[in-house]
Amino acid sequence: MKQRIVIALGGNALGKNLPEQMAAVKKTAKAIVDLIQEGDEVVIAHGNGPQVGMIQNAMAELVRSDPDRYIPCPLSVCVAMSQGYIGYDLQNAIREEMLDRGIDLGVATVLTQVEVDPDDPAFQHPTKPIGSFLTKEEADQLVRERDYEVIEDAGRGYRRVVASPMPVSIIEIGTIRSLVETDHIVVACGGGGIPVFRTEGHHLKGAAAVIDKDFAAECLAEQLDADRLLILTAVEKVAIHFGKEDQKDLSEMSCEEAEQYLADGEFAPGSMQPKIEAAVRFARSGRGRKALITLLERAAEGIAGKTGTVIYDRE
Amino acid sequence: MKQRIVIALGGNALGKNLPEQMAAVKKTAKAIVDLIQEGDEVVIAHGNGPQVGMIQNAMAELVRSDPDRYIPCPLSVCVAMSQGYIGYDLQNAIREEMLDRGIDLGVATVLTQVEVDPDDPAFQHPTKPIGSFLTKEEADQLVRERDYEVIEDAGRGYRRVVASPMPVSIIEIGTIRSLVETDHIVVACGGGGIPVFRTEGHHLKGAAAVIDKDFAAECLAEQLDADRLLILTAVEKVAIHFGKEDQKDLSEMSCEEAEQYLADGEFAPGSMQPKIEAAVRFARSGRGRKALITLLERAAEGIAGKTGTVIYDRE
Repeated sequence: MKQRIVIALGGNALGKNLPEQMAAVKKTAKAIVDLIQEGDEVVIAHGNGPQVGMIQNAMAELVRSDPDRYIPCPLSVCVAMSQGYIGYDLQNAIREEMLDRGIDLGVATVLTQVEVDPDDPAFQHPTKPIGSFLTKEEADQLVRERDYEVIEDAGRGYRRVVASPMPVSIIEIGTIRSLVETDHIVVACGGGGIPVFRTEGHHLKGAAAVIDKDFAAECLAEQLDADRLLILTAVEKVAIHFGKEDQKDLSEMSCEEAEQYLADGEFAPGSMQPKIEAAVRFARSGRGRKALITLLERAAEGIAGKTGTVIYDRE
Repeated sequence: MKQRIVIALGGNALGKNLPEQMAAVKKTAKAIVDLIQEGDEVVIAHGNGPQVGMIQNAMAELVRSDPDRYIPCPLSVCVAMSQGYIGYDLQNAIREEMLDRGIDLGVATVLTQVEVDPDDPAFQHPTKPIGSFLTKEEADQLVRERDYEVIEDAGRGYRRVVASPMPVSIIEIGTIRSLVETDHIVVACGGGGIPVFRTEGHHLKGAAAVIDKDFAAECLAEQLDADRLLILTAVEKVAIHFGKEDQKDLSEMSCEEAEQYLADGEFAPGSMQPKIEAAVRFARSGRGRKALITLLERAAEGIAGKTGTVIYDRE
């Protein structure tokens, strides 16, 4: 039976620089096309940590090289560039892998904005470091002139930090739906999406923030009425007592169990924790919706019920 | 009667840097939404000269800052980034202007690749300068290590030059058509499209080239079965004897007349000449197809037959 699957793809599936990305997307495409071959509708959201870092650093070097001519590039614009950069390689790798297997479907990268709430408490406590290390002078200047928030990283210098608010809605959801319904594989919400606020009713304004790609994928999956949220990561199954002698891999987990484990601190913040939170949120969002967490290489087996950790609502 | 219009938007409609672009796209959006308001289907192709130059320079500065860590960024990747950068501002400006007028249509930026022919004679004589000026040492190194072609620009240093081949086909044409047919305004073929070669049958490989945006828009208009190719530029009408005492503005021109004027050298190479060539090519490509060249601010009046220069086929 055909399922609609939204995939959250980690940065490790994309490589850290230009040559790594070219190689990584080929492997990633094989795993994704295994799902497509089963007849499933597939939409791919992905991270952009190393990529947007590279672009941010490049734009900062440009300003350094000619400060009279250039101004710092807003983070939202850097995310937009990273969607072009990653989407180009990712859509081509998927296109090639499909054609190699005789699958003739369209594949498209949609520039995607994701609404965030200016009152999100995350804006009170920016915690996500971005870009390269700065000297004290550079950091002070950015605080003074651009209202940046910076932190000192023990001994290594200063870094800008931004908020990581929750996604509220996908601005281009209608576009993504149109493409899914006309037999396209869609790459969307790159880097968690370009974060925007709604102002004056329907106007949009770029936000200096980074949206977690697992939460962005979850929001996308809900709004697309997906059947499955597939979170691909570095482990085949979620475990409790992770890394300890009594580590226990889980094949499934109800939302209640997941919440208990979260409360017990079983999952690392910034790593497995947001994945579990996104999975629970999706499983609770509608009847029959399940989330699956597994390795990239096990994606198709996981969707077939053979491996990975399923998060489901008892309801 | 509803028409399908492909617009070729010049770089002057987008500004030369971040703040200019934010302002320029608002004005551009007004002119485009005037057409949308008439009920026409609109697809926008645009240039990216200053924008891809900025991105190229930024990526080059990044390599300069840390040559052990970074490698030069291929031109095709820079074009992909520029599509994200420009599309983000342009689609939002169009979206806002539509919503301000109560028009509820989708607007989407499609990452677009355009096929070029590796045997295109343009590759034998790269002529298009890109990026910033280089020292002799930097130029020599890029020639040696990266096989770049460079030219010396009298007294100002060296610059990389790339080929400007003709577009052969739009890889994402099916995606663009799906979106047009589901009531989207589409931004596509940014910067003339990401130039790619077809290799080993269906594989694609980035080409170190820049495709003229007027020719890319023409190719797109043909493949989309558009009724009109609307080339927006800095003059209201095309003129012969341009800038002379006997300058004559033209309201229309048959393809035969246009070719005679081209042969007479009436149109500046790299400026009006490619626009006329693209217009003739489109007008000849199918029954009832016409091209129109006019000012951005006169777009809707031009399409209504009140101004601009129409290029038509007598046939």
